[in-house]
Amino acid sequence: MNESGRVEAFSDGIFAIAITLLVLQLAVDPHTQVDTAGQAWRALGHIWPAYDAYLVSFLVIGIMWLNHHTVFGYVARVDRGLLVLNLMLLLVVAALPFPTALVSDWLQKPGPAEVSVAVFSGFMVAHALTFQTLWWWLTRTGHLFDKRVDVEAARRTRLRFAAGTVAYPILVGLSFVSPVLTLGLHFALALYYAFNQLPIPLKPGAAADDEGAVAI
Amino acid sequence: MNESGRVEAFSDGIFAIAITLLVLQLAVDPHTQVDTAGQAWRALGHIWPAYDAYLVSFLVIGIMWLNHHTVFGYVARVDRGLLVLNLMLLLVVAALPFPTALVSDWLQKPGPAEVSVAVFSGFMVAHALTFQTLWWWLTRTGHLFDKRVDVEAARRTRLRFAAGTVAYPILVGLSFVSPVLTLGLHFALALYYAFNQLPIPLKPGAAADDEGAVAI
Amino acid sequence: MNESGRVEAFSDGIFAIAITLLVLQLAVDPHTQVDTAGQAWRALGHIWPAYDAYLVSFLVIGIMWLNHHTVFGYVARVDRGLLVLNLMLLLVVAALPFPTALVSDWLQKPGPAEVSVAVFSGFMVAHALTFQTLWWWLTRTGHLFDKRVDVEAARRTRLRFAAGTVAYPILVGLSFVSPVLTLGLHFALALYYAFNQLPIPLKPGAAADDEGAVAI
Amino acid sequence: MNESGRVEAFSDGIFAIAITLLVLQLAVDPHTQVDTAGQAWRALGHIWPAYDAYLVSFLVIGIMWLNHHTVFGYVARVDRGLLVLNLMLLLVVAALPFPTALVSDWLQKPGPAEVSVAVFSGFMVAHALTFQTLWWWLTRTGHLFDKRVDVEAARRTRLRFAAGTVAYPILVGLSFVSPVLTLGLHFALALYYAFNQLPIPLKPGAAADDEGAVAI
Repeated sequence: MNESGRVEAFSDGIFAIAITLLVLQLAVDPHTQVDTAGQAWRALGHIWPAYDAYLVSFLVIGIMWLNHHTVFGYVARVDRGLLVLNLMLLLVVAALPFPTALVSDWLQKPGPAEVSVAVFSGFMVAHALTFQTLWWWLTRTGHLFDKRVDVEAARRTRLRFAAGTVAYPILVGLSFVSPVLTLGLHFALALYYAFNQLPIPLKPGAAADDEGAVAI
Repeated sequence: MNESGRVEAFSDGIFAIAITLLVLQLAVDPHTQVDTAGQAWRALGHIWPAYDAYLVSFLVIGIMWLNHHTVFGYVARVDRGLLVLNLMLLLVVAALPFPTALVSDWLQKPGPAEVSVAVFSGFMVAHALTFQTLWWWLTRTGHLFDKRVDVEAARRTRLRFAAGTVAYPILVGLSFVSPVLTLGLHFALALYYAFNQLPIPLKPGAAADDEGAVAI
Repeated sequence: MNESGRVEAFSDGIFAIAITLLVLQLAVDPHTQVDTAGQAWRALGHIWPAYDAYLVSFLVIGIMWLNHHTVFGYVARVDRGLLVLNLMLLLVVAALPFPTALVSDWLQKPGPAEVSVAVFSGFMVAHALTFQTLWWWLTRTGHLFDKRVDVEAARRTRLRFAAGTVAYPILVGLSFVSPVLTLGLHFALALYYAFNQLPIPLKPGAAADDEGAVAI
Repeated sequence: MNESGRVEAFSDGIFAIAITLLVLQLAVDPHTQVDTAGQAWRALGHIWPAYDAYLVSFLVIGIMWLNHHTVFGYVARVDRGLLVLNLMLLLVVAALPFPTALVSDWLQKPGPAEVSVAVFSGFMVAHALTFQTLWWWLTRTGHLFDKRVDVEAARRTRLRFAAGTVAYPILVGLSFVSPVLTLGLHFALALYYAFNQLPIPLKPGAAADDEGAVAI
């Protein structure tokens, strides 16, 4: 396994665990009275924010993984700086079950709902920042990329990458207008990024990985 | 590691975590009075639905993994569509500890028992649908398969694959007749699939993987 | 990655998760009154069975992993039978945090202590049985092994492997005499196996893996 | 995958799970009254020790992983001794969510705060000891290293490695003077080690891994 492969395996582990731990907040409160089929359905219906939060966070972490995976597909070497920046990014990813649980617990109460979605959006800002710092580090000298990458062109994508960092703070503000709409926008944004990405610029004639594009 | 290998490693991680998180619902309620050996045995006997749910879900996720693993053994390339469809499938797999916990908590109360097993069966329907969509995507053009696969023949298996999607909705209905019987049928079905699969059609002369068959 | 490598990666994931989930039972009961340093030390002292259970189970699962890892180091091919038997073994391994939590919760109450250690010992019996069945399956025809293995000699080790299955049922009985002593014996046995194993018989001239021996 | 790669994959799994389980202590107590936005912010502010503990422990485990990963990058062979010593190290790593939760729960109460940070520091001592024992084992004969390593020089680093084992016991003592300061020192120390390491001594002309240095 090359250096990049080992970092990726560790990162993939954290992505996989964080995305799977989301299920722990999918639970009926053990104090709920459930003795009849009707009460059971109502108890399941009552936790609809948990389903929403699960769907949004699963998709969001999934897309984060896709992007991380795409970028590292073009990384041939790692240095301490990249390892530390990657650790910062993983620190945010691994923490995502926390704001997800907040949304799940608070979405039905107007005031706390706003706070929970604002915190969730704040984590998305933090992720966008760490991902861009990592991209900035990679494109700074470009010597960590494999030969296929057009470093000059990659460096020019920095500004477009920064667009994501503009969108997410707006969603923090929007959380105080409509938490449910904001959550829906996170879902729509993740779905959009699932199919539309900024391709990593390659030298003429270089073959892209099959899914060689990245969204932020 | 080729492209398919990396997607598989991430998927394997999620399967492994989901299957291991099942153990968290194997627990004696901390409010149970346990002071004598007799009370301890009774407390352990009282949670029999947890053992049933653990056994069934473990076997079910295990077989899902076997099938996922078999199919990806013949995938040589991945595209964005496959990645997104795979993510949908993993969304269902990672959520399975939730219906498992419902069965574990509610199987001893007639009404909620029906609801919990119906929800469990519903997740099986969702899994069958996502797995078939993935299969449909792979066989549509066949260009993601490696060379050994007979794409024409693989495309013809679609209808037989669809059989699973017919069986599971019936189990949703049966949950309201007998939840315990339905749970037993899920177990029997998983056991059946453990040993009987639809082989992935190969070109004449191509060597199958050692366990090259898939159940749905 | 060859077939065996992929099965092993999935198994390694389950071993790693099961062994790490053990930490969840290392916790001070949130209802404990902890306001002074003295109370904090007492609260930490009070949960000594949790430390014991953690140490024993960590070592036990660690040794199980070593053995699993050693055996699969000599497996070149997998068939459906091996996959299903491996799944049975993992079903027991993944469940081990459950008896560990029982020991942790009940070891300070004489009656329940016996029950918890008996159940723990019962899981060890179940593991020994699944591991031996897997070994029996591998040595039956031997065609799944790589070329280095002396199949005839490997088949003759079956009886010595069976010794483990005799020892563990005795520990089930001993749990009712002294639970703490029995737990200590599990620890001692795991420690013994950490350094003394039955080597996998190889053909003359074949090079062993560096740690090519197995304990049961 | 070579022998070392397989041990590393298992270890990486445990590191990844332990680091991700830290998120479970990032939670608002479900008994907190949260009905307004103000109460929600206060509830989030109230658990500041949980954020501190998360940040420190995440960084600490991350750096532990970096070092483990660096050392094993130069290991070509494994023997039973190395496997068992590695298991001891993982026993400490996997347990770290426990002292992290203690810090998170007790940091706001003077007496228990001292105890929790002292226990946390104690785990750091235990980790330093297991890591050094592993390093001592590797450098004893040096036959497990790959060819690039200058074994004589590596053996001479033992004393400098031991420096870490001196620093951490001091932090145990300092916990009783100022728990918060001590926690900050753990963070600073981890951050320092993230960028400054003792390089693994190589033979003249041998190429280091890209991040070929280790901190303790």
